[in-house]
Amino acid sequence: MSELRQDPPTKRWVVLATERAKRPSDFASATPREEVPAHDPKCPFCPGNESRTPPELLAYRPDGGEPNGPGWQVRVIPNAFPALAPKGELVVESPFFFTRATGIGAHEVVVETPLHNHPPALMEVAEILQVIRAAAQRFLALSQDHRLSYIAFFRNKGKVAGCSLVHPHSQIIATPIAPTNIREEIEQARRYYDDRVGCVYCDLLEREKTEGKRVVADTGDFLIFEPFASRWPFETWIVPWRHAPILDPSDEHRLVALAQAFSTALRAIYKAADDPDYNLVLHEAPLRDSCEDYYHWHIEIVPRLSTPAGFELGTGIWINTVMPEDAAEFLRQFVEA
Amino acid sequence: MSELRQDPPTKRWVVLATERAKRPSDFASATPREEVPAHDPKCPFCPGNESRTPPELLAYRPDGGEPNGPGWQVRVIPNAFPALAPKGELVVESPFFFTRATGIGAHEVVVETPLHNHPPALMEVAEILQVIRAAAQRFLALSQDHRLSYIAFFRNKGKVAGCSLVHPHSQIIATPIAPTNIREEIEQARRYYDDRVGCVYCDLLEREKTEGKRVVADTGDFLIFEPFASRWPFETWIVPWRHAPILDPSDEHRLVALAQAFSTALRAIYKAADDPDYNLVLHEAPLRDSCEDYYHWHIEIVPRLSTPAGFELGTGIWINTVMPEDAAEFLRQFVEA
Repeated sequence: MSELRQDPPTKRWVVLATERAKRPSDFASATPREEVPAHDPKCPFCPGNESRTPPELLAYRPDGGEPNGPGWQVRVIPNAFPALAPKGELVVESPFFFTRATGIGAHEVVVETPLHNHPPALMEVAEILQVIRAAAQRFLALSQDHRLSYIAFFRNKGKVAGCSLVHPHSQIIATPIAPTNIREEIEQARRYYDDRVGCVYCDLLEREKTEGKRVVADTGDFLIFEPFASRWPFETWIVPWRHAPILDPSDEHRLVALAQAFSTALRAIYKAADDPDYNLVLHEAPLRDSCEDYYHWHIEIVPRLSTPAGFELGTGIWINTVMPEDAAEFLRQFVEA
Repeated sequence: MSELRQDPPTKRWVVLATERAKRPSDFASATPREEVPAHDPKCPFCPGNESRTPPELLAYRPDGGEPNGPGWQVRVIPNAFPALAPKGELVVESPFFFTRATGIGAHEVVVETPLHNHPPALMEVAEILQVIRAAAQRFLALSQDHRLSYIAFFRNKGKVAGCSLVHPHSQIIATPIAPTNIREEIEQARRYYDDRVGCVYCDLLEREKTEGKRVVADTGDFLIFEPFASRWPFETWIVPWRHAPILDPSDEHRLVALAQAFSTALRAIYKAADDPDYNLVLHEAPLRDSCEDYYHWHIEIVPRLSTPAGFELGTGIWINTVMPEDAAEFLRQFVEA
């Protein structure tokens, strides 16, 4: 029989559909993937093509070199087709009841490596750390802009996950409004706190650690696990043991530990599910809204191994065919010591 | 410059990204579609293959014929791989804080026509009415089961919309819990009602009708329009002018009018966007929760013409490249008088 499960922090439900159940190993693909070259002369993110992107906002060139030329290891540029852009005034209009605001914000691309075929799942921890450092630097810069309310960091890998460019990159979008999903997550966390004088994520970590069966790895700084009410096969969360509403971009220890956790999680998913398309998203408190006691930042990774359809979009109830306990057991085989 | 817009009933935000803007006519496909035959001997939903599905729950055979044999016009069967099933007891467990429930419910398929290649967008209104009547009959039957809290009706068309079978069909999933999305929609509607002693959907209809620019058609019974904060290109809502929290399955006038509205909307979308993959979902109040004054049932149709990625999944803010005003103007050209 199938099982309905409720996600403790958000209260959302999923159906774990055992009638349709798949084993975690069913996701290995029979067809070998196309070979991707290390350099693609047509790729705007490849070295030598710097002039094909907007001028860079930040780049790491440890061995020197000119801005907007080659020699970089990580490079942050504005998105050439930004969803939101930093120029102009923030004007909010509510004529009668259709509330609208000018599209102020930022939309940036973190080109993670000069190598066209070198995704984070295959990177050294030191390489991932550089990406995280570059993003953190941009968070520090953007958070000075008082027109902004939220900075989203995310990574889309593959077409199914909404990404058209192969070259490894992540993105930053800053918005002048706080996202509805984050508001709801925080609201639920606040209710839990008011009921039990505790953080729901801290309690979740303790319980996941005790039960153990959904844990992929414990790095000491982060618990990596498949959530109890996983919406997708191999949905994976990376949650810091240390309670904090945001990832402090100047906390060097945390950035290093996060690079390690990214590496562990992405490498395991890459191997277990045959390099699946996925989205990775940072969840944290909005700017200037400390939520100190009750909210807890974290990372959610969702491999796009199923397609949300009308039922999911309409009701918000996801149907998942892989038990998180089975996914965790399978993933643990791919965690390197 | 892009624009942020807030959906009045749900308060969710979208980015209308004019930098990436597309014209509605950009969605016409250059490659002709594969010809689909009227009958596919391999299709479990085609006449003659009735034994390949679980025994039928309901069928219309106006010219007679045996159950589970050919001669039907509409046929309702249990899903062969149900997400939820009606047998067994509803047991809700909350050991410590991981709440789970047995997968009690129902998962049914409405096979809409014996013809393999005859989708609702091409049907006569009378044919669509039969589909709606069959679904309404199942709603009446399922709503007697007090273990159930919600009945979802939806239609997935095409692979991108999460549907693997070509033969025209819609689905019913009944759940023992009220879906989070519906609860939130109702909660927002209740807040609006408490503020203004009015239904947000009724007010929305008046304003959309007055502004006119997002209206696709007004059938007298239903307003068909592109919502102000459309999440997808050609997102289309069908909202009844008559306030009611649910579609009364025994209100024959409303069922007939809804068949007409479905036909108008689906035909226009089919022609305007080149027969796109889409999801169609009924939104209504849960069972035994009348929400009489403040909630208003409606239909949402989302053509899957873009792929939600990390930003959308993480923040709940959708990025849409087509202005709903442009989509409505384009769709109006395909509304038959």
